[in-house]
Amino acid sequence: MRDDDDIQGRDGETATAAGEAEALYGVSDELVRRVADALDEGDAPTARMLVAELHAADIADLLERLSGEERRALVELQRDGFDPEILPHLGGNVRDQVIAQLGPRALAEALSELDSDDAIYLIEDLDDDIQAALLAAVPPATRRALEESLAYPEYSAGRLMQRDLIAMPAFWTVGRAIDFLRETPDLPEEFYEIFVVDPRHKPIGSVPLARMLRHPRKVLLRDIMDRDVDAIAAATDQEEVARLFRHYSLASAPVVDDQGRLIGVITFDDVVDVIQEEAEEDMALMAGVGSEVDVNAGLVSVVRQRIAWLGVNLGTALMVSSVISLFEATIEQIVALAVLMPIVASMGGNAGTQTLTVAVRALALKELTPSNAMRILTREVGVGTINGLVFGIAVGAVAAVIFDPFIGGVLFCALLANLVTAGLAGMLIPLALDRLKVDPAVSAGVFLTAVTDVVGFFAFLGLAQLVLL
Amino acid sequence: MRDDDDIQGRDGETATAAGEAEALYGVSDELVRRVADALDEGDAPTARMLVAELHAADIADLLERLSGEERRALVELQRDGFDPEILPHLGGNVRDQVIAQLGPRALAEALSELDSDDAIYLIEDLDDDIQAALLAAVPPATRRALEESLAYPEYSAGRLMQRDLIAMPAFWTVGRAIDFLRETPDLPEEFYEIFVVDPRHKPIGSVPLARMLRHPRKVLLRDIMDRDVDAIAAATDQEEVARLFRHYSLASAPVVDDQGRLIGVITFDDVVDVIQEEAEEDMALMAGVGSEVDVNAGLVSVVRQRIAWLGVNLGTALMVSSVISLFEATIEQIVALAVLMPIVASMGGNAGTQTLTVAVRALALKELTPSNAMRILTREVGVGTINGLVFGIAVGAVAAVIFDPFIGGVLFCALLANLVTAGLAGMLIPLALDRLKVDPAVSAGVFLTAVTDVVGFFAFLGLAQLVLL
Repeated sequence: MRDDDDIQGRDGETATAAGEAEALYGVSDELVRRVADALDEGDAPTARMLVAELHAADIADLLERLSGEERRALVELQRDGFDPEILPHLGGNVRDQVIAQLGPRALAEALSELDSDDAIYLIEDLDDDIQAALLAAVPPATRRALEESLAYPEYSAGRLMQRDLIAMPAFWTVGRAIDFLRETPDLPEEFYEIFVVDPRHKPIGSVPLARMLRHPRKVLLRDIMDRDVDAIAAATDQEEVARLFRHYSLASAPVVDDQGRLIGVITFDDVVDVIQEEAEEDMALMAGVGSEVDVNAGLVSVVRQRIAWLGVNLGTALMVSSVISLFEATIEQIVALAVLMPIVASMGGNAGTQTLTVAVRALALKELTPSNAMRILTREVGVGTINGLVFGIAVGAVAAVIFDPFIGGVLFCALLANLVTAGLAGMLIPLALDRLKVDPAVSAGVFLTAVTDVVGFFAFLGLAQLVLL
Repeated sequence: MRDDDDIQGRDGETATAAGEAEALYGVSDELVRRVADALDEGDAPTARMLVAELHAADIADLLERLSGEERRALVELQRDGFDPEILPHLGGNVRDQVIAQLGPRALAEALSELDSDDAIYLIEDLDDDIQAALLAAVPPATRRALEESLAYPEYSAGRLMQRDLIAMPAFWTVGRAIDFLRETPDLPEEFYEIFVVDPRHKPIGSVPLARMLRHPRKVLLRDIMDRDVDAIAAATDQEEVARLFRHYSLASAPVVDDQGRLIGVITFDDVVDVIQEEAEEDMALMAGVGSEVDVNAGLVSVVRQRIAWLGVNLGTALMVSSVISLFEATIEQIVALAVLMPIVASMGGNAGTQTLTVAVRALALKELTPSNAMRILTREVGVGTINGLVFGIAVGAVAAVIFDPFIGGVLFCALLANLVTAGLAGMLIPLALDRLKVDPAVSAGVFLTAVTDVVGFFAFLGLAQLVLL
């Protein structure tokens, strides 16, 4: 539970008139309202004044929360001094609108001002012809850097990295390093370690800034550097990069090309975004809402995202219907079966989803490996058996009393069989998909529901036919 | 798709004999096997040699992948020089086993060696009496620090923070600051900025190390410090802290007490864990597998976690059964209804889960606010209407051909009604729960399924009764 009173405002702002403290970050509802009112009334000076001191991330937040019309008005107001840092903070849908409104020339200017990783992030999803037009409009040095990064696969370290970095030879002293940092203009604004490279520009060590600051000027970098450098190949998948950072709690890591030469640096903030996105992606994929949860997406793109998944589920539902139709005669004679059959299917589906969720996350985090898969499969079957016995006995007993002891017995057997199946299928389906190099988050749920529904209805209605008729 | 050939090994190790490159981090299956073999054969020197050079995080990884017996043997081998840094890297279940094996004295020693945030992480979940016994066994200074941190609520900034930090007055020069860092022993090993405090020890600014290194010795900290300090109250929820870090891409941030005095620092690596955990938590809660996905959890704790959720779902299933039982007479006459009714319920449930997933994530990320809720609700109802028309027409037409045009018409109406309901309920249920301060990830799914199942069966069977009998 969050207690707003515990939160101290940015800039130490004191509580507002309403007695509520400012939120820890972002823009308040109050500020959104005031900016919206100023824009609605065409009061440009007030609107400009209200956003003047905001951090780029907060202006992005504000733009996302205004209506389409207000957003356009605010971007128009800021057109001649539009801070390019705002763009990477915007969600996909709003970003596209703002980019379209700013036009290619303003965007080209923004690209040459941004860090290379942010610039890539902005243009990598654009259509090829728009991207080409933009690249033609930026200065040659920027263009070359962007084209090199774009040559790496999507979601790779090469796309994530920032090309400006600080590298020094191992024979430099701390003093010389500090003098270099003081005297060289145009260094990146934020960095957390100095990379030490050999004459072929291969990273051989790194010196965290804190360590650099704590050693006397005459000490050699070679003598204080960390030697176990986690050099990341540019083609490495970003998910792998995120796991590396998380595993060793890294602030930054060097990226190298095919020849092992240092070409860029990835910092923790890039990785934080990847971790958030990847965790969300699994959740979104499992629920069938595409690969990204964008709450502000438009109607058409949302329908497009979701209709495919619903179509696939319809296939499963039709399969289930055809299983039931095999037993029409039985249901006609014992209509209680129609009343009880959804219980078997729904318990199996829920239990299976529990197992599936654990398996999908464990696979994504590389925690499910050949060495523990058998152990966990056995556990899941055990869990299915116990839950099957518990719920089978409870529900079977109730059905025996309300309907008939034979129906109770059939319900017990069907529930037990379906919950054991759920445990088995919830593990084996994602493992098999992973082996086939298919992302289990995308497709495991459909297969699983198909299995638990079909087994559930078939076991219940089939047993009923055998025992009761 | 990951390509192992693209990954360069830690320490630049070259490809193994099998032609596969070493993974970017962690221990290879090969190493796990070799250590396991050595332990199984009681070959202590080989086992010790194999783990000697490993990073603490990798030893933790290794321990998690060994069998219970091998794990105990490896811990026993390392008893005399057990690196306490290994403990925070272990997953809950394995950590408990290792802690139990090491015993209270070894654990007390570990606590005084670890950073305060790691020490808190290890002891916060222990039983009260074990915790008290441990606190009694650590040196007084460590005990006082741990007790102060434990006084803050669980999942708060106070628990997350590290108490060792570097603070300086604003009138110090860069030169004096560097001299202080060089001459003071016992500073934290990793830090990314220097906090500037006023005489009452309130943070008034911060100087990133990169900036400190780039200015001449005579410059005052006051003149280069960032003044918009995001001071975090110690009671702030960790999820709020994670959003702050992500929003402004922070490397570290100061934590203050009730009086606004600097008492600790939170760094990006703590936050990376929180982001991962919180994203996973929502996914785990929605699937009803507790609040944490621990793939190595034991059978009993897994059954305990899941049975409650299955029980709740059984409640929904029984409610659905009682709805169906209202229409027993109708089903007896038109058994096709029993065949078709799962289609309506399952399409509604899937569509509702899509909307729900978007709403839950957007609420967790504070992207769903009063200012856009109405707009998004309208969109979801629109999506439900379009999908309802599409699937209603398709499935209704098929049913009209196979069974009877009236059944087709009823199916169309019921599908449309249920998909619109799914869009409405998928948004309104999480919004209502959030308003009531209940985590929508935990409970929204149950309510949603209850609504879409009941509406689905009721609409389909009720309409059928009206139209067809």
